[in-house]
Amino acid sequence: MCQLLGMNCNRPTDISFSFQGFRARGGRTDHHEHGFGVAFFEPSAQGLGLRQFHDDKPSYRSPIADLIGNYPIYALNVVAHIRRATQGVIGIENTHPFVREVWGEPWVFAHNGQMTREFIAKANRLFANGNGEFYHPIGSTDSELAFCYLLNRLRSHFPKKPPNDELFAFLSAQCRYLASSGLFNCLLSNGRWQFAYAGSLLFYLTRRAPFGCAVLCDDDVVIDFSALASEQDKITMIATLPLTKNEEWQQLCVNECAVFMGGERIFESLPENPYRMTIDEGIALARRVGASV
Amino acid sequence: MCQLLGMNCNRPTDISFSFQGFRARGGRTDHHEHGFGVAFFEPSAQGLGLRQFHDDKPSYRSPIADLIGNYPIYALNVVAHIRRATQGVIGIENTHPFVREVWGEPWVFAHNGQMTREFIAKANRLFANGNGEFYHPIGSTDSELAFCYLLNRLRSHFPKKPPNDELFAFLSAQCRYLASSGLFNCLLSNGRWQFAYAGSLLFYLTRRAPFGCAVLCDDDVVIDFSALASEQDKITMIATLPLTKNEEWQQLCVNECAVFMGGERIFESLPENPYRMTIDEGIALARRVGASV
Repeated sequence: MCQLLGMNCNRPTDISFSFQGFRARGGRTDHHEHGFGVAFFEPSAQGLGLRQFHDDKPSYRSPIADLIGNYPIYALNVVAHIRRATQGVIGIENTHPFVREVWGEPWVFAHNGQMTREFIAKANRLFANGNGEFYHPIGSTDSELAFCYLLNRLRSHFPKKPPNDELFAFLSAQCRYLASSGLFNCLLSNGRWQFAYAGSLLFYLTRRAPFGCAVLCDDDVVIDFSALASEQDKITMIATLPLTKNEEWQQLCVNECAVFMGGERIFESLPENPYRMTIDEGIALARRVGASV
Repeated sequence: MCQLLGMNCNRPTDISFSFQGFRARGGRTDHHEHGFGVAFFEPSAQGLGLRQFHDDKPSYRSPIADLIGNYPIYALNVVAHIRRATQGVIGIENTHPFVREVWGEPWVFAHNGQMTREFIAKANRLFANGNGEFYHPIGSTDSELAFCYLLNRLRSHFPKKPPNDELFAFLSAQCRYLASSGLFNCLLSNGRWQFAYAGSLLFYLTRRAPFGCAVLCDDDVVIDFSALASEQDKITMIATLPLTKNEEWQQLCVNECAVFMGGERIFESLPENPYRMTIDEGIALARRVGASV
């Protein structure tokens, strides 16, 4: 519990500017200081590799976060998470993002929210029986439990990888079920696409030409993207709360799902009665269910 | 292709001394310069977390290897690998160790060797059909293919996690099959135990009281363990080639399997006609099959 940060681009991009603002929330400008994790999907000559970093120290003073800031990593997709522990001890096994291999792809998942006791009991019963449940949680968070639950439903529904539209429709429906069983915001990526589901607060922003300047909310830093990006670049950032104060972040509706690929929004699924939560409402809801924003 | 380094201890231990010698072989004292990876199993208050580092740069000049050297990580098990690419492009997805979740445990695998074309074709046919094969390779190495092959056999043979002795006997038999389908040295760990299989060259060493000094082969470094370790400490190191020049490394026989837990050797399986390969024979064999030592 937690804040989320995602990036999806059409060309390999260094996330260090956004990460600099995000990591400050892990103990300096905010209280998400119980560890963090970042997963980078990096293209090689033939494929796409996943590189992960995790630390149980606060991100604002972690040597591993320093490394990420100083060592440019060019990625097509990034999923990052800073943790405020509400369920599960502080430890590497409980830091998001979580990873499982699905159809030969590394799927990366990060969650912000809190699953209900009923859901946790139901999922634990399934895992204890071990009847055909293939993916099992390693740590003790409700988040990893929800991820494994989702993947087990997915693999039993689709023996082989389906076309993307079918896949995204299925994932939206499953996430809607999970959001009815707790507070559930998530980012999920296979390295090609990034799937975002908003249970309360989730914002995104697509940067494209003409590029301008961006000013971080959490640090005294300004960046001029026009000097760094090329005309063709499309970069979508996704975050629990906006990371910059001079750009127009779009807010997802409650129970809206959006999928991004190559920096573009390629799929969406809106609930029947779409509405947006104010940041204050989102924070109040998180507190009420024992989560944090 | 490749060299292996493993550590198994009864108390969380910092591997940085051994890693300093090992990383030198990734481009300075030897030619394994196509990336590296290290997996650390670290205990928390309730569980055991897995932390991974990968880089496609040579380990001797990687900023990530610098971090590992400078940031003490106390682990019960470590599996590390430096790569000389023979199969699969240079890229993060092809750097060992590989990880899959098995029965709620993160299983970590690193391989030194080269599988035969026949084996690769057979395994690829299985994966292409997708008939009940759950684990699929993400990258393009023969090593990850062998790992997924092994795990698929394991999960279909044991619907639930068996007792350790049954598990190790099954893994030994499967590794013996894999060693008959190529050159196959491996390290495999679930964080509690570390399983080592020698197809050609694999050495190990257990450090325990009374502790003495150790002198690296690959760097001008001496360490006095008596000043660092406590009486109860037991630390087993496993490596393709000995890392220190003044300690007595034991060599595994060809097709011998050994499992370590808490620094102690807890399981072994010897072939019918045990013999040891000389280092020269091991290197010649690797060259002959298109692998490297």
